[in-house]
Amino acid sequence: MNTRITSVYRVKADASTIETRARGIAVEQSVEMPLEPIDDPFVINDIIGRVEEIKDTGGGWYEVRVGLASITTGCDGGQLINMLLGNTSLQEGVFLIDAEFPPDVIAAFAGPNIGLDGVRARVGAKGALSATALKPQGTPPATLARLAYDIALGGIDYIKDDHGIADQFYCPFAARLPVIAEAVHMAAKKTGIATRYLPSLNGDLDKMRAQIALCRRHGVDGVLIAPMLCGFAQVQTLKRENPDFLFMTHPSMAGGHIDAAFYFGKLVRLLGSDASVFCNYGGRFGYTPELCTRISRWCLEETPGLKRCVPVPAGGMELKRVPELLEFFSRDVILLIGGSLLATKQNITRETAAFCDAVRRF
Amino acid sequence: MNTRITSVYRVKADASTIETRARGIAVEQSVEMPLEPIDDPFVINDIIGRVEEIKDTGGGWYEVRVGLASITTGCDGGQLINMLLGNTSLQEGVFLIDAEFPPDVIAAFAGPNIGLDGVRARVGAKGALSATALKPQGTPPATLARLAYDIALGGIDYIKDDHGIADQFYCPFAARLPVIAEAVHMAAKKTGIATRYLPSLNGDLDKMRAQIALCRRHGVDGVLIAPMLCGFAQVQTLKRENPDFLFMTHPSMAGGHIDAAFYFGKLVRLLGSDASVFCNYGGRFGYTPELCTRISRWCLEETPGLKRCVPVPAGGMELKRVPELLEFFSRDVILLIGGSLLATKQNITRETAAFCDAVRRF
Repeated sequence: MNTRITSVYRVKADASTIETRARGIAVEQSVEMPLEPIDDPFVINDIIGRVEEIKDTGGGWYEVRVGLASITTGCDGGQLINMLLGNTSLQEGVFLIDAEFPPDVIAAFAGPNIGLDGVRARVGAKGALSATALKPQGTPPATLARLAYDIALGGIDYIKDDHGIADQFYCPFAARLPVIAEAVHMAAKKTGIATRYLPSLNGDLDKMRAQIALCRRHGVDGVLIAPMLCGFAQVQTLKRENPDFLFMTHPSMAGGHIDAAFYFGKLVRLLGSDASVFCNYGGRFGYTPELCTRISRWCLEETPGLKRCVPVPAGGMELKRVPELLEFFSRDVILLIGGSLLATKQNITRETAAFCDAVRRF
Repeated sequence: MNTRITSVYRVKADASTIETRARGIAVEQSVEMPLEPIDDPFVINDIIGRVEEIKDTGGGWYEVRVGLASITTGCDGGQLINMLLGNTSLQEGVFLIDAEFPPDVIAAFAGPNIGLDGVRARVGAKGALSATALKPQGTPPATLARLAYDIALGGIDYIKDDHGIADQFYCPFAARLPVIAEAVHMAAKKTGIATRYLPSLNGDLDKMRAQIALCRRHGVDGVLIAPMLCGFAQVQTLKRENPDFLFMTHPSMAGGHIDAAFYFGKLVRLLGSDASVFCNYGGRFGYTPELCTRISRWCLEETPGLKRCVPVPAGGMELKRVPELLEFFSRDVILLIGGSLLATKQNITRETAAFCDAVRRF
């Protein structure tokens, strides 16, 4: 009845220390104290983490599988990451590379609201999808609205805020949302493509709720959210409260002791990401093609109880790479091109149209 | 009028690439797009990050100082860390090691509610302070209350929840808070030392607010909170709403591309930590004495507009090390000893008393 999450760590150690190190992680991520004084059978049997397997992967690195009691997460997002990695993130030579979630954990978190099929249906698409970001921060609402209009006229599927566009005095959320939403709706009427605007949520839970309420008043039905900035529990709550909303997740602050494939492919999907933005290979973030393939595969793999999450490679993407990227990621993808599109300036509608046509024709 | 935060990065590069790399960080952490298309003078002058200095620190590492426009933070905690490190956390070979905050940023965030003096005053202490953690998770409320009572009888200053003790069905927050608070109050009446209980907040903002409300009903006036789990904006809001509360911060998930001295010594202090838990040297986390000195110094250094934050070394501390640690950290400190104290089992009151006496006599 009491299930375990199998979390998998990549650990730097030598043959003589790996067992101690592995046990140390199992203890750190559960009871976090010496085991000798513990005499409660419930704690011993149902709470303490268990080393399930240690595999030598060569070069002084080991793969350690630890069974963590699902009940210790209390089905809370913050506590989930606390139990998976929390204190261990403070140690050197250890990375969280995977976790296998049992059905009760999957049912409790429940994953994407609308997932890949919903993300496509929103914009009437059948194959690959196109997206861009409004930039740079510092631009006033009217100018961003004009930019969004010009881009939407090119027939793009999704337009998100840059993640740096928060609620600064020079571009308050409440001032930009109505004008950008209106601009995108107007362009969509002309093109016949139901382009969607995804504004970037920011601030505390109260503020994000108010931002979603404003979205509803202006016909906006999806948002961008950065789980590592706002806290997993906030994502979980907002997703539950807004089952009709699309949540695109942003990678900000997701570097460190957590493997990118696990974070962008599995963890944010479990939490409720409909579309997971990550760093594309060949851009400015040093991700390899192999890593991008793993992220994409994990976003999309069939998992009972979880809708598929759309992989969204981004970061230093260029228009000229679109054919290559479609070939690489195939049709279950949103290609997100920001700066390279903005750099086309007065030709932006035409360049967007070329980008979107290439994506749609694929 | 428009101030800059000088953020400092340690960057791996070679002489031929460091300038490009440094400019890349300044752009990534501000406008995040190619600069050529930007023509708005406000964005150019007041938003784009500026490389202020590049210093070769040897061994292929450089120290890069970047001036980030304070207004881009919108005075929001989540957006602050987003601008300081957000996307750059996804790149290899770069660490955020410091940031100098201008007076307007300090005034906006305002730091600790009560700080070192308040943390001492609460428990009638003059010098170094003692603390421990209730463990292990999985223990029912009544047993934790009994444990808290036995420890408090030893005259300890602060008793916090282990950070893994959240709101699980086997120990709900609402069930444990009243009984532990009552146990600690009863013991405090006997000892004459105003021992405080710091329960661990968890869940989303609504839930944490309800937990604080419950604290108030039971005479509890401080909490443990993990900023990297709940999101900086939540910490900021709770601190503002509860100016009489003590906030002890927990390090969970703070590893990665952020230097420990900056995070535990400066950043959580700016955000409002009255007492910052970090990993002690010689424990199970590999922190060096030099790093612990830097953390402690930054928690305590005189900063106009910010109360001092109490450094709280923890993690694999042992009772026998108390004299050494007092010598090392001196009197502006809370020594937090968890597992080693719990391991004394039926002698816990006596061992706690010995620990607290050593701390108080110092």
